[in-house]
Amino acid sequence: MSIFEVATTAPETLPLDGFDPALVAKLELARSASRTLATATADVKNAGLTAIARAVRSQSSRIIAANELDLARGSDSGLTQGLQDRLRLDEARLESLAEATELIATLVDPVGEALCGKILPNGLQLTQVRVPFGVVGAIYEARPNVTIDIAALALKSGNAAVLRGGSAAESTNRVLVEVIQEALESAGLPRDAVQTIDEFGRSGATDLMRARGYVDVLVPRGSAQLIDTVVQESKVPVIETGAGVVHVFLDESADGDWARDIVHNAKVQRPSVCNALETLLVHEAAAERLLPSVLADLRAAGVTIHADERTRALFADSVPATADDWATEYMSLDLSVKVVDSIDEAMDHIARYSTHHTESIITNDLRNTERFLAEVDSAVVMVNTSPRFTDGGEFGFGAEVGISTQKLHARGPMGLPELTSSKWIVRGSGQVRG
Amino acid sequence: MSIFEVATTAPETLPLDGFDPALVAKLELARSASRTLATATADVKNAGLTAIARAVRSQSSRIIAANELDLARGSDSGLTQGLQDRLRLDEARLESLAEATELIATLVDPVGEALCGKILPNGLQLTQVRVPFGVVGAIYEARPNVTIDIAALALKSGNAAVLRGGSAAESTNRVLVEVIQEALESAGLPRDAVQTIDEFGRSGATDLMRARGYVDVLVPRGSAQLIDTVVQESKVPVIETGAGVVHVFLDESADGDWARDIVHNAKVQRPSVCNALETLLVHEAAAERLLPSVLADLRAAGVTIHADERTRALFADSVPATADDWATEYMSLDLSVKVVDSIDEAMDHIARYSTHHTESIITNDLRNTERFLAEVDSAVVMVNTSPRFTDGGEFGFGAEVGISTQKLHARGPMGLPELTSSKWIVRGSGQVRG
Repeated sequence: MSIFEVATTAPETLPLDGFDPALVAKLELARSASRTLATATADVKNAGLTAIARAVRSQSSRIIAANELDLARGSDSGLTQGLQDRLRLDEARLESLAEATELIATLVDPVGEALCGKILPNGLQLTQVRVPFGVVGAIYEARPNVTIDIAALALKSGNAAVLRGGSAAESTNRVLVEVIQEALESAGLPRDAVQTIDEFGRSGATDLMRARGYVDVLVPRGSAQLIDTVVQESKVPVIETGAGVVHVFLDESADGDWARDIVHNAKVQRPSVCNALETLLVHEAAAERLLPSVLADLRAAGVTIHADERTRALFADSVPATADDWATEYMSLDLSVKVVDSIDEAMDHIARYSTHHTESIITNDLRNTERFLAEVDSAVVMVNTSPRFTDGGEFGFGAEVGISTQKLHARGPMGLPELTSSKWIVRGSGQVRG
Repeated sequence: MSIFEVATTAPETLPLDGFDPALVAKLELARSASRTLATATADVKNAGLTAIARAVRSQSSRIIAANELDLARGSDSGLTQGLQDRLRLDEARLESLAEATELIATLVDPVGEALCGKILPNGLQLTQVRVPFGVVGAIYEARPNVTIDIAALALKSGNAAVLRGGSAAESTNRVLVEVIQEALESAGLPRDAVQTIDEFGRSGATDLMRARGYVDVLVPRGSAQLIDTVVQESKVPVIETGAGVVHVFLDESADGDWARDIVHNAKVQRPSVCNALETLLVHEAAAERLLPSVLADLRAAGVTIHADERTRALFADSVPATADDWATEYMSLDLSVKVVDSIDEAMDHIARYSTHHTESIITNDLRNTERFLAEVDSAVVMVNTSPRFTDGGEFGFGAEVGISTQKLHARGPMGLPELTSSKWIVRGSGQVRG
């Protein structure tokens, strides 16, 4: 490279080449709305949230009718039962979305929070405050609840939202965004603060990923494949969420009851989510004591055990683990199980295969606890509890944007503060630099 | 897209296809060293910093000899005087780099700082603590001082560093990294904690940008073009630094002396840096009072004034501003000047052309001050002082990685805390999720 300092024009003011002008117009409206939202008071934003909750309830039959169109198309095109279930909105689900929106209205507004402040030796007064990002983009799939969740979280944190919800939920999302926009308008807020770009199809998602200067941050939610595509292709900064190859390590001194209950909870309570257990590691000195009862309990719950040789010697009702199993996020009633010689081997295995989401050690040994908590490089590290607790609701955030598995900006469950940036305010009285 | 939730293998454990195996080996060594550094105490890291400072002093003739090779090549290949100056290391510059390294040793270690903590209703103890990123990558040009700066900041914050310093400084950087590695080793730290990949040439930089899973964050430092290339092409999360189309707005009530002194300082004191002034906006009601003396002072200092028509009517010794001027970061003794009708027009101009680095208002009006500070969307917003103060050293950070102009993770001057991520530690006693 022989690129040196020369006068340059600011890249962010360049036009968006090759974009659909109708999409650029939407992005410009979102950006303009974001300037209004950035300085909106919490009272105004909360009124918008309350209006959205009210509208979701009063317009429920209109939303459900649109949802039935998507479900019928999904049924015709062979969408699995699991995905149809995720796509479905009924009165009860809409009520819980309305309640979540009302809950977000009760949370503390993150905008304006002073993060630090001081007076410099020359008298300059320095304050770092939280500010909204501006425009938040989201790319997700067949989960119309995300439309309301992200719109509500973005509004509360002073951000405009541009949503790409995927073709399977297109009718539902269109009506949901209409309902949200009507509610925003009724509360005196700009309707363009929440927009869908579903009508631009696949190219809309591609354009959203390269709309630098229009979109400040992009949050993908959905399968590991979707997230990986967005992470690889986006020119807009991304917060990577989700994929979890989660480990529990039963140390030599693990309590038998805790081991059984925590492993059962971690694997069985809700196997399809990112904080569910995928790989169980067991210290060789505890394997004979713990594995037969822990695994029998899982088998009784319908779990298929993918076991290494030492595990199979202790528990025959299993299938041999393959090399791929250790790196697999099953999201189903399957579990990889491996006996390790030491906590070091357990942590080496985790370093190699973990997606750095959540790992838990079950132990009564203080030194091993502190080593595990310090040395395991994951968003959440635990001792003697279930990885299923890695969740914005459980952590007391009230609402959750997703769970970040990257290290930049946000790590672990993301609440409202993670939808903000900061800025420095400097108040002077004529100071110049010497 | 029809990508739904299915079992997937973790993308981060995939091999790095098409990479030079020697480069992958270096990245693996850096990752391994980062695991050691992550739990190194501040005492140990500070001993490493002190050893680096000592080695920079004791090996100065070896470093300067290598630097002379680069300078001779640069002179042969027509490198400008300015760039040759930036490339040059002499005894005085090495001494100041050694002192900066010793200063970093005196700063508080950011690693381990508890950011928040609480006990959940179910008894789980939650603590969020600062942790190192892991491996920090840097891509920069012809500035060998950055090699020592980034290595020292990375070490203090517990990160390994992989450096790509550009061909113009290749000999200097190779010797600097050798000196640093010898110092690390003498202090009992892994020598692989700081590495250069300059020997892989252009493809090394390309590979560094796609080394997800090996490099946790990438910091480009240099020209706007270099930064833009890295931002556009990197698959690794990037912290965008630098480009500054910085504005000062002289409001109707601006004090004449402050206006002249601050504008002079902002433009003239060091025009080649990102926090120097590029565009001066003046309220029409103050133009006649302020512009003649402010601009005459700048002309006397050799500044070329690129003026709009209203400015030219008040100050003839100027050239007509072109449309491009408003978006140009001159980095030279050139200044764009425009008369605006109101603070709203000033803020609209800033919203359109600013790179969101630093903007300052000079005023005695409280309402306009609060509007400007709240509504201008830049990393640093100021009242009645010079934008040249946007600087890690001036802000009291002791050292600076660069100035972030993005909103994700870090905004404004970046010190040691900005080179860290966080993790959640959860301590339980058998809790499972209901």
